[in-house]
Amino acid sequence: MAPLQKTRPSALVFDAYGTLFDVHSVVELCDQFWPGKGAQVSHLWRAKQLEYSWLRSLMRRYQDFAQVTQAALDYACAALGLALDEKARSRLLLAYRELATYPEVAGTLAALKALRIRLAILSNGSPSMLRPLVAHAGLSRLVGTVLSVDPRKTYKPSPAVYRLAVERLRVPKSAIGFVSSNCWDTCGAKAFGFRTFWINRAGAPVDLLGVVPDQIIRRLDELPELIRVPVS
Amino acid sequence: MAPLQKTRPSALVFDAYGTLFDVHSVVELCDQFWPGKGAQVSHLWRAKQLEYSWLRSLMRRYQDFAQVTQAALDYACAALGLALDEKARSRLLLAYRELATYPEVAGTLAALKALRIRLAILSNGSPSMLRPLVAHAGLSRLVGTVLSVDPRKTYKPSPAVYRLAVERLRVPKSAIGFVSSNCWDTCGAKAFGFRTFWINRAGAPVDLLGVVPDQIIRRLDELPELIRVPVS
Repeated sequence: MAPLQKTRPSALVFDAYGTLFDVHSVVELCDQFWPGKGAQVSHLWRAKQLEYSWLRSLMRRYQDFAQVTQAALDYACAALGLALDEKARSRLLLAYRELATYPEVAGTLAALKALRIRLAILSNGSPSMLRPLVAHAGLSRLVGTVLSVDPRKTYKPSPAVYRLAVERLRVPKSAIGFVSSNCWDTCGAKAFGFRTFWINRAGAPVDLLGVVPDQIIRRLDELPELIRVPVS
Repeated sequence: MAPLQKTRPSALVFDAYGTLFDVHSVVELCDQFWPGKGAQVSHLWRAKQLEYSWLRSLMRRYQDFAQVTQAALDYACAALGLALDEKARSRLLLAYRELATYPEVAGTLAALKALRIRLAILSNGSPSMLRPLVAHAGLSRLVGTVLSVDPRKTYKPSPAVYRLAVERLRVPKSAIGFVSSNCWDTCGAKAFGFRTFWINRAGAPVDLLGVVPDQIIRRLDELPELIRVPVS
């Protein structure tokens, strides 16, 4: 293991959707439009959003995440046989710019900032989605750098995306800790060369992609303690 | 539309898994190992198999489809809390080399061959999976060319994979008809430049990936009639 990994990371880079922001906080709103179907819509919407991001990257037909998110919502409703009018679509896409954070997020980020660690977000989200999202959650002052994959015209887990964080933060990759609740995202980040933390809220099995996250925790607020302790 | 597209394709390239071969023909065997859970295992297994193929391609960590298929099975069982011993794993992976074809496959391929159209398979499957699969189904004499993505070390829908068919068949891409029951696969093939046929057995909505398959049919045996009629 590289010596730098034994020290505290000088920067922590967070995934946004699913990690800081609860993508399923739209379930309630979905339930208002389609009573009893909220969770089903939300889950298929999210699954297709990821699938389309991977497929478009492989097809070399990048389209920004706002458009991918809309296409995924349209597909989910069509697949479930639910009518989606312009009003519902607009409301749901707006809600995606105002997703709730998990309860421990603000406190954890403040604790990490107090440890003098630079904090950044690296997200599939387009700049037009991330700006209102971070502002709405009141995280703008805690997170110094918000990076969208958009300039690279591809999505996670392409190495080009993780490289963006190295270039913009001007920190060697071995000094960057990458945090995501999407296991595949931590695997991609690990394959690239980051020290990785998987927030495994659901207690899911680790993805079998040939690399594994360095550390697995259940909640984001376990992070400050962990960061203080060197990796053995 | 290119003039060549108005003529009959000179070659038809078929996806294997889900198109000619029913990946869910393992449900019964899964049910023997985990009574009542067969369909659930089979569906999660297939979903993870595709997901891992996309993720590994994006991560540039190609591993052949036999290994991806085993990893996906291991994950599916772990996620569903089902014990998978060595015997069950071996039996299921062997079954994947002996998947049933859909009932109309052999007749349709024979009818297409009688029209003097060259027939090929282009599959994510590794050569070690495809050889026994095609032989077991008795399709070796009907399908002249069986192509695996393996030499390209990436998976569908990467354009590099579809290009393989052009190079090996030595036919211009506009003269190739590509047939898949995976909508995203036809979208990838269409983006590459093939004339595409989506076998939509389940009556699913079309994927929203910026390109759409040229023709949508419900069963493979609608193909010979369709091929005879020029696209208007």
